[in-house]
Amino acid sequence: MDYMAQAIALAKLSIGATSPNPAVGAVIVKDKSVVGEGRTQPPGSWHAEMMALQQAGELARGATVYVSLEPCRHYGRTPPCTHALISAGIAEIHIATVDPNPLVAGAGIKELESAGIRVVQGDMEEQAKELIESHAKFITTGTPLVIAKFAVSLDGKIATHTGHSNWITGNEAREHLHTIRSQVDAIMVGVNTLIADNPQLTARPGSGYPVNQPLRVIVDSRARTPAAALALKQPPRTLIAVTESADHQAVAALKRAGVEVAVMPSQGGRVDLLALMHELGSRNITSLLVEGGGEIHGSLFDRGMVDKVMAYIAPVIIGGEDAVSAVAGRGVSSMDAAYRLSRVKVQRLGEDILVVGYVDHPAISRL
Amino acid sequence: MDYMAQAIALAKLSIGATSPNPAVGAVIVKDKSVVGEGRTQPPGSWHAEMMALQQAGELARGATVYVSLEPCRHYGRTPPCTHALISAGIAEIHIATVDPNPLVAGAGIKELESAGIRVVQGDMEEQAKELIESHAKFITTGTPLVIAKFAVSLDGKIATHTGHSNWITGNEAREHLHTIRSQVDAIMVGVNTLIADNPQLTARPGSGYPVNQPLRVIVDSRARTPAAALALKQPPRTLIAVTESADHQAVAALKRAGVEVAVMPSQGGRVDLLALMHELGSRNITSLLVEGGGEIHGSLFDRGMVDKVMAYIAPVIIGGEDAVSAVAGRGVSSMDAAYRLSRVKVQRLGEDILVVGYVDHPAISRL
Repeated sequence: MDYMAQAIALAKLSIGATSPNPAVGAVIVKDKSVVGEGRTQPPGSWHAEMMALQQAGELARGATVYVSLEPCRHYGRTPPCTHALISAGIAEIHIATVDPNPLVAGAGIKELESAGIRVVQGDMEEQAKELIESHAKFITTGTPLVIAKFAVSLDGKIATHTGHSNWITGNEAREHLHTIRSQVDAIMVGVNTLIADNPQLTARPGSGYPVNQPLRVIVDSRARTPAAALALKQPPRTLIAVTESADHQAVAALKRAGVEVAVMPSQGGRVDLLALMHELGSRNITSLLVEGGGEIHGSLFDRGMVDKVMAYIAPVIIGGEDAVSAVAGRGVSSMDAAYRLSRVKVQRLGEDILVVGYVDHPAISRL
Repeated sequence: MDYMAQAIALAKLSIGATSPNPAVGAVIVKDKSVVGEGRTQPPGSWHAEMMALQQAGELARGATVYVSLEPCRHYGRTPPCTHALISAGIAEIHIATVDPNPLVAGAGIKELESAGIRVVQGDMEEQAKELIESHAKFITTGTPLVIAKFAVSLDGKIATHTGHSNWITGNEAREHLHTIRSQVDAIMVGVNTLIADNPQLTARPGSGYPVNQPLRVIVDSRARTPAAALALKQPPRTLIAVTESADHQAVAALKRAGVEVAVMPSQGGRVDLLALMHELGSRNITSLLVEGGGEIHGSLFDRGMVDKVMAYIAPVIIGGEDAVSAVAGRGVSSMDAAYRLSRVKVQRLGEDILVVGYVDHPAISRL
């Protein structure tokens, strides 16, 4: 069990750097000593098991492997890990969770068992599933895991009635957010938020460690993004989603500024968000952190498209009938229809409180 | 220190039953054994020290007393505790915090010291101050401690856009609320909440222990309370605050229904809430739990009248631009002006989260 915790800790270090592959960790143990460790490297490079086998060398013969995800058995950009484990002479393998792709789940295990390897499945399964939650959503739906993030006051406001919002939460919460940004494939905001706050939308965790920079996605039905927006000036890439009815000159101006513009079908005059999710999926975006504002969150909840919620709550009261709400849109009519989160975790971040939970959809509960 | 924790635990058992007196606990220790324990009894009956001295009898001579609040030295409904402690021959007394009334603070300690008793002050002072927070507010301002309580979704809503709110929080949170109700002198709601929810507004904790029932206060500028409202049918008393311009027939009908009506000055056509606080203070209401709705909370925050916040947050998303906000009113314009809470405590109650904190006003920081 302890070795599996180590495998999962290794995998965590890879979150954000392996997409669209899942982050996996592996530990090889021989005579109660760790003889090999590995974690998924960027696409095209080593899988966790291969890295650990490489390190173990001849010591892998007769050893036990702890791996956070069922080893692959297909030829992708790398040869199948099952083959490598079998030929290295592994005696026993502990697998935290099976492949989330329903078409291949269990096939890797079967192949290992057929080769005479003892397979134990289910150690720390919940943690292992959380590690690969975005991969699982992506592989089963072709669309990214949608995480609705907001920083709110205790009374649920993301800005005062004048639109002022700097700062609701404190340093620890903002630092945490930058780490989360470095772990997702894309960040999305509505154009109103972009105009109001002019954010950079980059991952800037305090640690000097080189970080993954997520794709920026701006939902901008009418192509109102100012060409001078900070988010267009910074690396990495920015994608602006507009509708067909957006002003052609404005679209052309954005393109001249070097920004990629995706013309999306519209729904009620706005970008069809489900179509946008498929567009992002086609670009191998497996996880999307939606940072607001209230209108975007409202639209996503109204359409049942949110998978996970991260609410940074500051112990502050803003008040105001006209203050900006964290989740606008139409909203539910009856409490029975409200999105009650499951697997809720609560954490203090300085003076603030982080609440993380999941919206149970069929796609996710299949995890 | 351990004995002081015991004294504070005893005092806590009396919260809600001693008003307008503070809840106090006392423990008398002789030769490392507890020889007397006491806690404040209802007004006119024993103070904590007297009850403990009674139990200790002759063993009090040379003993050490641990008491959560500076003993009184004035003749009220009971003789001064200082006299009793001195004549019982107490050798040493530990006092957690001094009398919050600035006119008498320290006088009890001086009298004890003059009589040759060793006085130690400050053990567990913070917890002891919290015990008497409503008494302290009341004694220094003549108005009750105002506690803004709301049960909200993660996105800060107290009801859906149709007004539906049953139930946002779960059983543990509601049970906790009923205990809090039994510890305050009064509960207040706006008439809109009364009409929308028709609440009983009684303290109904699950334990069979007999509980204090707070006075109900309904803010009802235009006397719209339905005579059939559940809150008028239940014990204990209900006070309806109306303005002078309220319909006289409606007021007369409420009076005929046996309800007390207080005609208050108006401010902008509504009940002047500060005047109402003074009215409540004149009735020895030291603590007031304001249970909403958003308009009342908004008015109280807008006027800087809230001392303490209790937010029961459910991990649920309601959404909706037109959903009912926990704190409406005008609200602050800039984040610098927002009410940032201090001494924040976070607690899980089942799936829900309770956040308690204080608004720092001069009156309270004097505590």
